[in-house]
Amino acid sequence: MSTLTRFSVSPLSSMTRRLADVASGRAEPDLVITGARALSTYSERTLDNREFWISGGRIAAMHPAGRYQGSAAKRYDAKGGIIAPGLVDPHIHIESSMVTACAYAEAALLNGTTTIFCDSHEIGNVMDVAGVEAMLEDARQAPLSIFLTVPSTVPATSPEMETAGGDLTPEKIAEIFDRWPEALALGEKMDFVPVAMSDERSHAIIAESLKRGRPVSGHVYGREFVAAYAAGGVTDTHEAIDHEIANDLMEAGVWLFLRGGPPTTPWHSLPEAIKAITELGASHKRVAVCTDDRDADDLLIFGQDWVTRQAIKAGMSPEQAWSMGSLHGATRFGLGDEIGGLGGGRRADLVLLDDDLKPVNTWYGGELVVENSKVTPILDAALEKPYRYPEAAYHTVKLPDAVKLTPALPTVSVKAHCIRTEMPGITLVHETIDLTPENDWQEHFDKHGLCFVSVIERHEKSAGNVAHGLLSNFNLKKGAVASSVGHDSHNIIIAGTNEADMQVALRALEKTQGGVCVVDEGKVTAMVELPIAGLLSDKRVHAVAEEVKALKAEWAKAGCAIPYMGFNLIPLSVIPEIRITDKGLVLVPQMEIVELFETL
Amino acid sequence: MSTLTRFSVSPLSSMTRRLADVASGRAEPDLVITGARALSTYSERTLDNREFWISGGRIAAMHPAGRYQGSAAKRYDAKGGIIAPGLVDPHIHIESSMVTACAYAEAALLNGTTTIFCDSHEIGNVMDVAGVEAMLEDARQAPLSIFLTVPSTVPATSPEMETAGGDLTPEKIAEIFDRWPEALALGEKMDFVPVAMSDERSHAIIAESLKRGRPVSGHVYGREFVAAYAAGGVTDTHEAIDHEIANDLMEAGVWLFLRGGPPTTPWHSLPEAIKAITELGASHKRVAVCTDDRDADDLLIFGQDWVTRQAIKAGMSPEQAWSMGSLHGATRFGLGDEIGGLGGGRRADLVLLDDDLKPVNTWYGGELVVENSKVTPILDAALEKPYRYPEAAYHTVKLPDAVKLTPALPTVSVKAHCIRTEMPGITLVHETIDLTPENDWQEHFDKHGLCFVSVIERHEKSAGNVAHGLLSNFNLKKGAVASSVGHDSHNIIIAGTNEADMQVALRALEKTQGGVCVVDEGKVTAMVELPIAGLLSDKRVHAVAEEVKALKAEWAKAGCAIPYMGFNLIPLSVIPEIRITDKGLVLVPQMEIVELFETL
Repeated sequence: MSTLTRFSVSPLSSMTRRLADVASGRAEPDLVITGARALSTYSERTLDNREFWISGGRIAAMHPAGRYQGSAAKRYDAKGGIIAPGLVDPHIHIESSMVTACAYAEAALLNGTTTIFCDSHEIGNVMDVAGVEAMLEDARQAPLSIFLTVPSTVPATSPEMETAGGDLTPEKIAEIFDRWPEALALGEKMDFVPVAMSDERSHAIIAESLKRGRPVSGHVYGREFVAAYAAGGVTDTHEAIDHEIANDLMEAGVWLFLRGGPPTTPWHSLPEAIKAITELGASHKRVAVCTDDRDADDLLIFGQDWVTRQAIKAGMSPEQAWSMGSLHGATRFGLGDEIGGLGGGRRADLVLLDDDLKPVNTWYGGELVVENSKVTPILDAALEKPYRYPEAAYHTVKLPDAVKLTPALPTVSVKAHCIRTEMPGITLVHETIDLTPENDWQEHFDKHGLCFVSVIERHEKSAGNVAHGLLSNFNLKKGAVASSVGHDSHNIIIAGTNEADMQVALRALEKTQGGVCVVDEGKVTAMVELPIAGLLSDKRVHAVAEEVKALKAEWAKAGCAIPYMGFNLIPLSVIPEIRITDKGLVLVPQMEIVELFETL
Repeated sequence: MSTLTRFSVSPLSSMTRRLADVASGRAEPDLVITGARALSTYSERTLDNREFWISGGRIAAMHPAGRYQGSAAKRYDAKGGIIAPGLVDPHIHIESSMVTACAYAEAALLNGTTTIFCDSHEIGNVMDVAGVEAMLEDARQAPLSIFLTVPSTVPATSPEMETAGGDLTPEKIAEIFDRWPEALALGEKMDFVPVAMSDERSHAIIAESLKRGRPVSGHVYGREFVAAYAAGGVTDTHEAIDHEIANDLMEAGVWLFLRGGPPTTPWHSLPEAIKAITELGASHKRVAVCTDDRDADDLLIFGQDWVTRQAIKAGMSPEQAWSMGSLHGATRFGLGDEIGGLGGGRRADLVLLDDDLKPVNTWYGGELVVENSKVTPILDAALEKPYRYPEAAYHTVKLPDAVKLTPALPTVSVKAHCIRTEMPGITLVHETIDLTPENDWQEHFDKHGLCFVSVIERHEKSAGNVAHGLLSNFNLKKGAVASSVGHDSHNIIIAGTNEADMQVALRALEKTQGGVCVVDEGKVTAMVELPIAGLLSDKRVHAVAEEVKALKAEWAKAGCAIPYMGFNLIPLSVIPEIRITDKGLVLVPQMEIVELFETL
């Protein structure tokens, strides 16, 4: 285990005498960072000519630059750069980046992020409590402050609709809260319709959090649900997609986490939602920014720092924006006295910024971990000793011996319930296509722009469940693409033009025990191996980013019309209109399963 | 016990389904308040034409006015008035008002205050943990939400300097935290010099709070102490007396509670301190307002609502000011999801305001307790059934049988260490006066403008300690004035022109077991009886206010140059320059005891 973790800095309760000694000049600091401008998230001003006296990984004091006249401390000259608190990302899913918590830390620190609140519901869907707890161990050993918002909606629907590896009951959620003090909130309660409808289990889960004085994070679409959802005890959301719902949510007492992401994706809702502030005149004091999900390669480009800068672009002052990227998230989760600002006693989680607010250096708990945008040796050493997941986590793709991945060719005219993919790849359209008998599937495909899609249960919880469907408009030209990250139950999803390549893809994922791959003419042309729970690589973030880039290139070459993150959502049976799980085709508004073919 | 208490409203964890039902229109609200403007502390805007659906004492939803079309609910037409969240006072001492928590509630609700954070260190100084816990029981039975900031500095100094009834060790403070969930923070750590000097006991007390994730409230004067004090873990203060220290404190990460009070007193520091915002451009998001201490009569005039309006007078918008009076204090103590705003799920602690932001009505947990600025029958009934303090609390003035209250007349020339009172009565000046032998004390008094002052130990913890001193400039013309509220140990303090009247005053306080009185020619001319711990009346607030007014009239008639609240501070041996305790005259900067007379 690395020694550079959240626990490298002792609790403030044990350090106040020492810090008072240092602040008063009776004891030497360990480090003095001088010659800085200070970005104050408290007053939302930038202060000239400051220096920071650091002791035991905490800020003892901010003083006027030049006050320290001793020689004992290490000194760092900021040369007029801006010192700001490390960023706090109030809502992310580590699994989206397909890396471990230890690996995620590298990207976060490069972006100036020193604290994240993660919701590990993906691994919870695969491995139940054991998965959540393994990731918590991973988080504890990471060189980053990682807090948990406890997965609240596992499985996403019900055993009638899909077979998940996990089932986080109210009782199990209560146990996680009681066992892990870093479980600071309930994670996004995605089943907003059941919450608004007063569903018993949904509210029992909410109650376990509220009973413990922990807040409840949310996820809601549709202005008509806001009032009931807020009445249900939810007090933050990252799904405000425009300023109207953002405004409604704020007035209902809900903290807003404005989400930024690659500008061509629906993740980038910040520019619209922030108009509640910039156009409708609302205060920004209960507004933070967040990243939510990131591909591994995007993680390095579109970090929380990038999102914070987008808030400036949208009209906030740099100091307001940096507060939204740091202090506000910390305050929302009750950590405003510990992180998110440059006050006395706070963790020395600091960044040195250039005038464009781009992080140059990062100090984590007083240790310089990024310098000139490069990982320092101390961080590199820590990253080379990541947490090792338990053996069981490496064996989660449990497949039937023989499984047919494509439906039988219709011999009579049928109506097919097809899944039409459309950019950006979140909502899927329910398209019915009449098929008249043809000689082979290729003729149907050519005529209607179709390909196969199948979901294969991988948790060994069914008798080898497999469901067959047809994708429309996906534009796969040849071969197959496959993934073990089929939200949220994370069964195997494969799209293909022929059974053989689909079989190759399936067995490739079995061999690696998880991954996302592209197959052409019987060969795997690209593969991101995800051996941990079928969700995570065990490599460092840059390696995974390179693999992801290579995968994306092959993915595009195969013709796929939506990106793999969208492809992974095809089984997510809570988003309209039609989905496919291991149980079959799910019509979401009706929450019922429909046969692929109806005889005409 | 009254049924109108903080516990009349069930925890949100047990109510989310019902509230979601009501918000969605599937179940009837209990009460609809319609035709209102809504003052949003979240967005800091006022919204037109709203209505509130209340259920089980909580806000189910705010909807556009007129949406409720049912007939089951009680309706209240706000007739275009402003509905705002009840005020939250983040720092007060109930004992200052010489009333019980149950009695305090009446004044608070009349002022639109529905939650207070009290620091019961006065009763702690008299009765130790038992006193704090009795007041917590009182608080639980009051029709008001009362949270505790645990008394942190009892005694104010040490047994060498004064004899207190209480000694709140770190261990006892830990027990209070563990026993009382409403103990949400450590109360003002008044010994800021020891904190800055890394004193062991002071920091051990701070650690008990921080270890439990509870914040530490502060009290600090002097910009030179700010850095070390903040490094010591303190994260709020109500003692920012001007904008410079306010600014320093904010940048050190300390929440500001700007204190307002009667404009002629030093309690009214808000107008100066708020310039950190209005002139220096700091954000107000970590700034609240508070009342701290109030005479019973002032309580009804200068409440938290008045202080909030002073913030408007000083340049804040009405919505910003009301946020500073409600949501910000709630947020600071982690209750922003429960109170301080009009969001879904919040307690229905609401006020109806006129256009000058004066409270007209107050709803406490959905019950209309003040209407047209008058107590409603349901509140009146609750106030008639207050908590009864334990019998021991009524027997705390334990005096020696015979005690001499005046010093012997000097027979040789001496230098006398006198206490010079000056308006406003907080700081006392150390004045040395040479006394040449005279025939009687009156000649000294006439020549030098002096009178007697004595402190008599009343906790039965000494062998009848009494200390004699001389007040200069106090201007007492005749008789005696006396109090059992001699901060912070609350021994008896008596000032007088003659032994006989001082003895009458002493025995009058013994008879009532506490109070503040004026004596003239052997007769008590005014008395506020304080039989509970020698600190609190057991009457309702208006009755106490009337008694206080009568006392103030006699006090003025006696010629006293500082008000009785200042007089009560004469034994408070932490404020410069010289004080008198039962141990003798204390030179504060040196923290040593000096004899009254030095032979010349």
